[in-house]
Amino acid sequence: METIRIGIIGHGFMGHEHESMLTRLDGYKVVGISDTDPKQLEDVKEGIKRYANNEEMFNDPEVDVVIIAANNNQHHDLVIQAAKAGKDIICEKPVAMNLAELDDMVKVVDECGVNFTVHHQRRYDKDFRTMKNVFDSETLGDVYSIKSSLYGFNGNMHDWHVYIAEGGGMLFDWGVHLLDQMLWMMPGAKIKSVFADVRNVINFEVDDYFKILMKFDNGIMAEVELGTYFLTDKMDNKWFERHWIMGGNKGTAYLDGFDPQGAIVRTNGLLQNVGGQRTMTAAGPTRSFGPPPEGKLVTEPLPLADTTHEDYFENYRKAFDGQEEFLVKIPETRRVLRLMEAARESARTGKSIDFE
Amino acid sequence: METIRIGIIGHGFMGHEHESMLTRLDGYKVVGISDTDPKQLEDVKEGIKRYANNEEMFNDPEVDVVIIAANNNQHHDLVIQAAKAGKDIICEKPVAMNLAELDDMVKVVDECGVNFTVHHQRRYDKDFRTMKNVFDSETLGDVYSIKSSLYGFNGNMHDWHVYIAEGGGMLFDWGVHLLDQMLWMMPGAKIKSVFADVRNVINFEVDDYFKILMKFDNGIMAEVELGTYFLTDKMDNKWFERHWIMGGNKGTAYLDGFDPQGAIVRTNGLLQNVGGQRTMTAAGPTRSFGPPPEGKLVTEPLPLADTTHEDYFENYRKAFDGQEEFLVKIPETRRVLRLMEAARESARTGKSIDFE
Repeated sequence: METIRIGIIGHGFMGHEHESMLTRLDGYKVVGISDTDPKQLEDVKEGIKRYANNEEMFNDPEVDVVIIAANNNQHHDLVIQAAKAGKDIICEKPVAMNLAELDDMVKVVDECGVNFTVHHQRRYDKDFRTMKNVFDSETLGDVYSIKSSLYGFNGNMHDWHVYIAEGGGMLFDWGVHLLDQMLWMMPGAKIKSVFADVRNVINFEVDDYFKILMKFDNGIMAEVELGTYFLTDKMDNKWFERHWIMGGNKGTAYLDGFDPQGAIVRTNGLLQNVGGQRTMTAAGPTRSFGPPPEGKLVTEPLPLADTTHEDYFENYRKAFDGQEEFLVKIPETRRVLRLMEAARESARTGKSIDFE
Repeated sequence: METIRIGIIGHGFMGHEHESMLTRLDGYKVVGISDTDPKQLEDVKEGIKRYANNEEMFNDPEVDVVIIAANNNQHHDLVIQAAKAGKDIICEKPVAMNLAELDDMVKVVDECGVNFTVHHQRRYDKDFRTMKNVFDSETLGDVYSIKSSLYGFNGNMHDWHVYIAEGGGMLFDWGVHLLDQMLWMMPGAKIKSVFADVRNVINFEVDDYFKILMKFDNGIMAEVELGTYFLTDKMDNKWFERHWIMGGNKGTAYLDGFDPQGAIVRTNGLLQNVGGQRTMTAAGPTRSFGPPPEGKLVTEPLPLADTTHEDYFENYRKAFDGQEEFLVKIPETRRVLRLMEAARESARTGKSIDFE
């Protein structure tokens, strides 16, 4: 198996991440890095070329694959230039600013016959893959609700992510991942309608809060919610990380944290018309709510996934060698892009959007 | 101030509650109770009449006010009969099975000139009133999200609540309260659209799960969610009780439990474009998420409310004497009924419903 020789465009936050991971991974060699700001290249690791511009990279015969980690509004032009230079392409997410851009890119890529995929490495997030294990196992019976959420404490976006024109905002930054995960969890299911709230709570220009509901044709109502300023002081449940809740008629699975903690929870009795029992609460009597009696709840461990983001490049290496398919397919990223557009439209109009 | 003399129709779960509370409260006397099932009257307290039928109660000159605590599908006929008998009326919630029924009832009530209100005692729930205190204080800045939820462990409805024809299901049982609270929290605000999921997860006939989103013209997206079978084994946050989260651009308030626990949480810095900082997580680097640094979060106590359900009857007594208005007005209950119909329609069609 030959080493895959990589060129990286953009040495910002993600450019550094790619440099760091791919100089560590077997089967990869980072040949060179470019950036429009020469200062960004000052800390490029030894042994890696610092290109004066992107053309130098595109013309470098040592580069097999270009990773595009520039601002989102540059993906369109850079993908097209890389394709015309005959390079294979891994583009950061979101793949494009809108559907028209993507369709344009795909046309050129197809003409040039290069490989084109997107860095949706969060398909390998432990929290997501653990919940996908739960879903695939069908252990919860008929699933009716899946909630995926992420909360932060500082409210602010960073660097160019504060500008709409550069593709900033949390929907493009994290939303694209959260939606991609949800769609890829149940690849056969169609989304009937989308209802969303997208807004800037703290930031002046870009969205920093969203809640997106998706009604699937498999009967599931899925929700993703992200708040960059959605606070608690309860530190026991990893609030400022990822959360999942999946509800089915045979139990609920919950998960907290990037490094998953949680359980599958069921009750020891079900599906009988109960005669009525009172639980006194501070808000009067209730027969359906209040602390469950001792032994009523039974738990099972989550089927933990042991995936890492390196698995993304492991797949890429095998797919590059023709041993398997590239994990992330462009039509999938197009669907996510379309879904984000529907979410923005729903938030703008206050109405649900018919989707598929 | 004269004693208000009460007759109760229906000696089931709520009939017992009314008997118990009103025999305890000053200014009230429970004169008699009726029930279609004579067995239900066996445990009526001493000194309270056991009517052979409702007509006996309607003809009893000792009764000033009739409390209708019969099954939901009987409210329509009973309210009309009580009005025609010249009795004032407190009807259990939901006031009617549908808008047509209510309009019919109101017509007769108006003709007869009796007082007619609905037992929305949960406007005095401590958890709700504490969150209303937070909302009214404007301490969170611009509020963008309000979530009100309630989860249970047994999945089952009780008694006649398992039958659609009798007005069963959780939307009619608890949903009517959760929606009434949300509307009464911000009485001036109009709902632009409603998007909802309503379903029976465990029960054969009636709904036992719902999630209802309401987009208000004041910019707030409000959500109520109730699951009768939505489980966790985390016992520290009173999961199987009430929860509120209210998010604003100057902080978040959260509350757990019928007997409220929670806090107002803010950060010690805001509204500046931060330069970027990395927090390593099990799912790779992130600059916006992960545990906050020591001292970043600051908390304030919730403005706890000290209300009880007895306050409902305290208001009723004063309003009966003309000292103040009845808290619960029929047009408010009509709006909640219409909202529940919109929620069912949205759940059925998968589309949002334009509301006001």
